[in-house]
Amino acid sequence: MRSVVIIGAGNVAFHLTRALIQNTVNVRQVFNRTLSKAQELGEANHINYTDKISEVEKAELYIIAASDSAVEELSHYIPYDDTLVVHTSGSLGTEVLKGDYRKGVFYPFQTFTKRKTLRYEEVPFFVEAENKEDEDALFKLADKISNEVHRVNSEKRRKIHMSGVWASNFVNHMYYIAQSICKEADVPFDVLRPLIEETALKVQDLEPFEAQTGPAKRGDDLIIQKHLELLIDSRQQQLYQLLSDSIKRTYSHD
Amino acid sequence: MRSVVIIGAGNVAFHLTRALIQNTVNVRQVFNRTLSKAQELGEANHINYTDKISEVEKAELYIIAASDSAVEELSHYIPYDDTLVVHTSGSLGTEVLKGDYRKGVFYPFQTFTKRKTLRYEEVPFFVEAENKEDEDALFKLADKISNEVHRVNSEKRRKIHMSGVWASNFVNHMYYIAQSICKEADVPFDVLRPLIEETALKVQDLEPFEAQTGPAKRGDDLIIQKHLELLIDSRQQQLYQLLSDSIKRTYSHD
Repeated sequence: MRSVVIIGAGNVAFHLTRALIQNTVNVRQVFNRTLSKAQELGEANHINYTDKISEVEKAELYIIAASDSAVEELSHYIPYDDTLVVHTSGSLGTEVLKGDYRKGVFYPFQTFTKRKTLRYEEVPFFVEAENKEDEDALFKLADKISNEVHRVNSEKRRKIHMSGVWASNFVNHMYYIAQSICKEADVPFDVLRPLIEETALKVQDLEPFEAQTGPAKRGDDLIIQKHLELLIDSRQQQLYQLLSDSIKRTYSHD
Repeated sequence: MRSVVIIGAGNVAFHLTRALIQNTVNVRQVFNRTLSKAQELGEANHINYTDKISEVEKAELYIIAASDSAVEELSHYIPYDDTLVVHTSGSLGTEVLKGDYRKGVFYPFQTFTKRKTLRYEEVPFFVEAENKEDEDALFKLADKISNEVHRVNSEKRRKIHMSGVWASNFVNHMYYIAQSICKEADVPFDVLRPLIEETALKVQDLEPFEAQTGPAKRGDDLIIQKHLELLIDSRQQQLYQLLSDSIKRTYSHD
């Protein structure tokens, strides 16, 4: 891709722009409907920025890096037909892009926080396009910044996105519940942090099936029962029971 | 503590022995009912080992580092009264220790895998004893190897232990389910590993409440509904629904 324009200025746009530039991709411009956000991203990376459609430059690729709900509206803003437009969403198809241009997807599979640095070469990318030539070009582009690039269709990408909900969103909610229980015991969240880190590091080498520990894995119903009694919140009890049952089934304890 | 004997030779015994010795604590001996395991641990740390009760040496502290179900039986094996005996369990009280010696708890809050090195100074310790003098001694001992030592009674320790079930055991099961979904999309577990690591690293700085992302956090019922339809397993559907509801409540989306 000889020239890229980024549409959007949120977390994904922020990290992606930096990664592309660091890998010598020619990012010409950032467009965002809020000028101050376009400016922040543009100035941080020494590239042009604008909030005016009439000023959007011609490029070989437009990457709409925005929240799912904003992609469709932003897709109207690309004033050229002879070009490729992609979004970065895990759950949207290409049909959400409303224009006569060629369409595709450029999905980085990671959780993004603006002020945290990412090792972008470790972020898996999933690419898709309506024609093989564009898909090859997107693959090459992703391959410049990441060691793990896959071609997948929208159906598979939706599953991968959902797996991320389990591995990241639901996991973080487990942290939240764990913290609330620690609060009841008057101990700070700090006591959980090393355990959380080690649990994630374990499966960098092992498979989750081998890494599992705890009362449900051992089929220790006495401890499970005691924990259910310790829980005050009935919804947490229900979750504890379901999760323990699910682990027990995995290890054939019932 | 001028002298310590380790009872047990599993994962916790393995890591604890090494950490104590590295911090110049005089670990005199390892006792285990299976000689080969006692030998492995003893030789790795250049200390005596035995499988015979009659050979258990006199020490100021005996640490029973064993699975919950084995602690009571092992507690009979200490052939001295004028000494302190502790276990390393998060869920057992001191009453499980059956002897006329003084009793306590020395609980390291971490998930242990034998072949992985741990930064032991980051492992939180929770200590408890029947009298203040012993508790002070246990505190000092834990303080030698860890930066995070707390005194807690058995009730609080049980809650802390349960919080670990959420933050580690249930989290690992989320990884397992995520992997099973990726398998359906023909992509390897490797694509989840960076996301898993980043999700855990995020809460090393942030609180889980701030770190939360995803459809349930945003109250995006359309995506939640699509994910529920993608799930084949009815128990996974039930879990997905409950977890999403729990997150939505946390952010007042219902």
